[in-house]
Amino acid sequence: MADFLTSQGEDFSKWYNEIVQKADLADYSPVRGCMVIKPYGYTLWENIRDALDRRFKATGHVNAYFPLFIPESFLQKEAEHVEGFSPELAVVTIGGGAELEERLIVRPTSETIIGHMYAKWIQSYRDLPLLINQWANVVRWEMRTRLFLRTTEFLWQEGHTAHATSDEAMEETLRMLGVYTDFAMNEAAIPVLPGRKSESEKFAGAVASYTIEAMMKDGKALQSGTSHFLGQNFARAFDIKFLDENNEQQLVWTTSWGVSTRMVGAIVMTHGDDQGLVLPPRLAPIQVVIVPIWRKDEERAAVLEAAQQLHARLKGSARVELDVREGFTAGWKFNEWEMRGVPLRIEVGPRDVANRQVMFARRDVPGREGKTAAPWDGLETTVAEMLATIQQAIFQKALDFRDSHTWDVSTYDELKEAVETGFARAWWAGDAADEARIKEETKATVRCIPTEQPGGAGTCVYTGKPATEVAIFGKAY
Amino acid sequence: MADFLTSQGEDFSKWYNEIVQKADLADYSPVRGCMVIKPYGYTLWENIRDALDRRFKATGHVNAYFPLFIPESFLQKEAEHVEGFSPELAVVTIGGGAELEERLIVRPTSETIIGHMYAKWIQSYRDLPLLINQWANVVRWEMRTRLFLRTTEFLWQEGHTAHATSDEAMEETLRMLGVYTDFAMNEAAIPVLPGRKSESEKFAGAVASYTIEAMMKDGKALQSGTSHFLGQNFARAFDIKFLDENNEQQLVWTTSWGVSTRMVGAIVMTHGDDQGLVLPPRLAPIQVVIVPIWRKDEERAAVLEAAQQLHARLKGSARVELDVREGFTAGWKFNEWEMRGVPLRIEVGPRDVANRQVMFARRDVPGREGKTAAPWDGLETTVAEMLATIQQAIFQKALDFRDSHTWDVSTYDELKEAVETGFARAWWAGDAADEARIKEETKATVRCIPTEQPGGAGTCVYTGKPATEVAIFGKAY
Repeated sequence: MADFLTSQGEDFSKWYNEIVQKADLADYSPVRGCMVIKPYGYTLWENIRDALDRRFKATGHVNAYFPLFIPESFLQKEAEHVEGFSPELAVVTIGGGAELEERLIVRPTSETIIGHMYAKWIQSYRDLPLLINQWANVVRWEMRTRLFLRTTEFLWQEGHTAHATSDEAMEETLRMLGVYTDFAMNEAAIPVLPGRKSESEKFAGAVASYTIEAMMKDGKALQSGTSHFLGQNFARAFDIKFLDENNEQQLVWTTSWGVSTRMVGAIVMTHGDDQGLVLPPRLAPIQVVIVPIWRKDEERAAVLEAAQQLHARLKGSARVELDVREGFTAGWKFNEWEMRGVPLRIEVGPRDVANRQVMFARRDVPGREGKTAAPWDGLETTVAEMLATIQQAIFQKALDFRDSHTWDVSTYDELKEAVETGFARAWWAGDAADEARIKEETKATVRCIPTEQPGGAGTCVYTGKPATEVAIFGKAY
Repeated sequence: MADFLTSQGEDFSKWYNEIVQKADLADYSPVRGCMVIKPYGYTLWENIRDALDRRFKATGHVNAYFPLFIPESFLQKEAEHVEGFSPELAVVTIGGGAELEERLIVRPTSETIIGHMYAKWIQSYRDLPLLINQWANVVRWEMRTRLFLRTTEFLWQEGHTAHATSDEAMEETLRMLGVYTDFAMNEAAIPVLPGRKSESEKFAGAVASYTIEAMMKDGKALQSGTSHFLGQNFARAFDIKFLDENNEQQLVWTTSWGVSTRMVGAIVMTHGDDQGLVLPPRLAPIQVVIVPIWRKDEERAAVLEAAQQLHARLKGSARVELDVREGFTAGWKFNEWEMRGVPLRIEVGPRDVANRQVMFARRDVPGREGKTAAPWDGLETTVAEMLATIQQAIFQKALDFRDSHTWDVSTYDELKEAVETGFARAWWAGDAADEARIKEETKATVRCIPTEQPGGAGTCVYTGKPATEVAIFGKAY
């Protein structure tokens, strides 16, 4: 256990707050509830952004940019939407030195302003589907904030699409849920559970909300991305109509979907350990760090030269850093890079130079077990293979953790016990009132009704009614 | 001349407003002074962003993200800064349903909030230089707005660096001016004039401001990027100190530099013509459009197949679109893609298929002169070469235009005449009061004191005093 860091077992929440700052991911700002994303954290976010953006473009979406400010009247056009967001709004009342006639809301999400524009842009079925995504900052006034997990301002992407039919819009909603699942599994190495939100947990203004739910190392759930089928709610509120092929006016069907900087928190709490961060190679700002090691002055030149040459070779195929800082011991450097979650450390010492090899040290496998020698020849390939191995290994570890902390329960008592340390999976036929009571009694909620269902039927864990679906219960961030 | 578009000669300003909307770069929003950047315009901005970001990273900078909101008291800490920005501020007075104790400013620029964080992060000379850039939205309440050129909210990057010495900070200021110049010349194909701002035109809070000035096709100047040497002004205001190598407390020296979505306007007004946009190949969202052409039904299959194959081949090396839309004539498509500024059109007809060739049509060279045949063999190379040729040609055209609209003047009357249609270059030794009078009388200002100087000395065009520098005068956007 690192002595500079609270252990996860001692206080997971404290561990999180400490590591986010110590690893230079983020810092508190003087503005209530707002964070500063530091370069190391921002680079991780850039890698998340790029991996998502590639997927959005591959599925036919384009990016655009809509205004930060939304006229107050816009938010009031969709009843559930305004009710959901009203308590969280930041309001601009003064502009250019004068009181504004209509107050402006700093966007908490952009359905309304985008709805207004879509009404202008969409005329005929030929304009559909309209598949636009936006990378932006949004503001929701939060009472209790935590770096990345819940901040007053955060960065995210919000996709907003319009379709000619309900089926197409639902297909899009689920396609993007699939894109998020693929991203989380294959890039962030987080084994998420895709599924539907219960009525009480869905987005304000949606007909149905879908989510990817992840289990953190304290057994709690983190909603890590959502995709909403909005039906014709916003189309009605903003009069988004098109002429169909029979020349008749129809309302469009819309969706929206988003992933935010919260994903950084998900990565930290899924993979991190008592030594600090463990970052998935595919997203890590630094995938490989090379640490040259020597004891005697006469060893220095040869070791440094070898390290520099290997650094130059690897640069083309990996995000690699060479640590030649003077005045720090190799051991200190090892701790530092482990704390920062660099997946692979390459050590180069005098004996390695003599043998034309290096030592690999895996972040995810501590101690001797994680150490292997690798020859200089073909090092680009060995490194790439090792990074892929680590990516797969930390995914498997997270999956094993989740599986071992998920219990199929058939009684309410079992459910209560399960959610103390993880997820409960149970037949469910309750309504919003049942869910509210469960939340009050256990602090757990329906995290999702998973897309993957066992089939058949059972007895609702809470109401005893016949049920056709299982739900995942857990305490959530 | 396109009949759907006002000609530049008739009304340049109207031409600009029309083409920005018709080419789907941007749209007006319901929020006063804010624009919507549409997908085509946003992709252009993404390409600008990526080309700049590569250069920032190559010169040792990293990205981070600072809060949108700035406590009102922060802005008041630097006297000139607050004076310069006060009239332009948007102010949040309500958050989470309650009146705020301290009002929050929506950032017009981030020197102050970043200054506050730097004071926390910088302890010793080892922490210097600190080289951070931010991609963000900013808000300045503007009275008269124009899409991309002047909007209440705009997107930009703002670099903020801190250094141990004045020399290093000045070196950084000029390095970034060089980066902007290189970007403008080699990516945007805009022949900018790098130089120093006069006292009256410099940034609020800077010791010295540098700029790249571009000439638009109406002869007016557009400030297209700025780099500021801030001396110790912000270090003093925010107490940004470090322990130097002699263990003594010193104030740091800071710089800031920015390029915004205004650059899109610069590209439109530098290269556009009466047919619409002309985009530089290196930044164009679509570099090449393939238009298959057939008259008889029996020609269709072979032409389409060839067009699809060429599309598939070119996709790896160029941003290429295949226009197979039905119900539009080839001529209509030509006009459409010309209006949208696509640098190179590839036409594929039955005779081309028979000859295993295509026809190139250059956007920058209208009519027959811009047409050449190119064989299928080696088309990837021919296309790449043609795009490079076009890039170079539109740069040269813009340079020729600027040179032919720039006059060396030695009398005030000559200056007055020159700034009616372009730039005046003249010896200058005036002060802020002189400049104010010139502005009142001619509407022209000192756009910059160019980095490249003739040397020697002359007589100030306005005051008649001895002068050692020449300045560029022009009317500005």
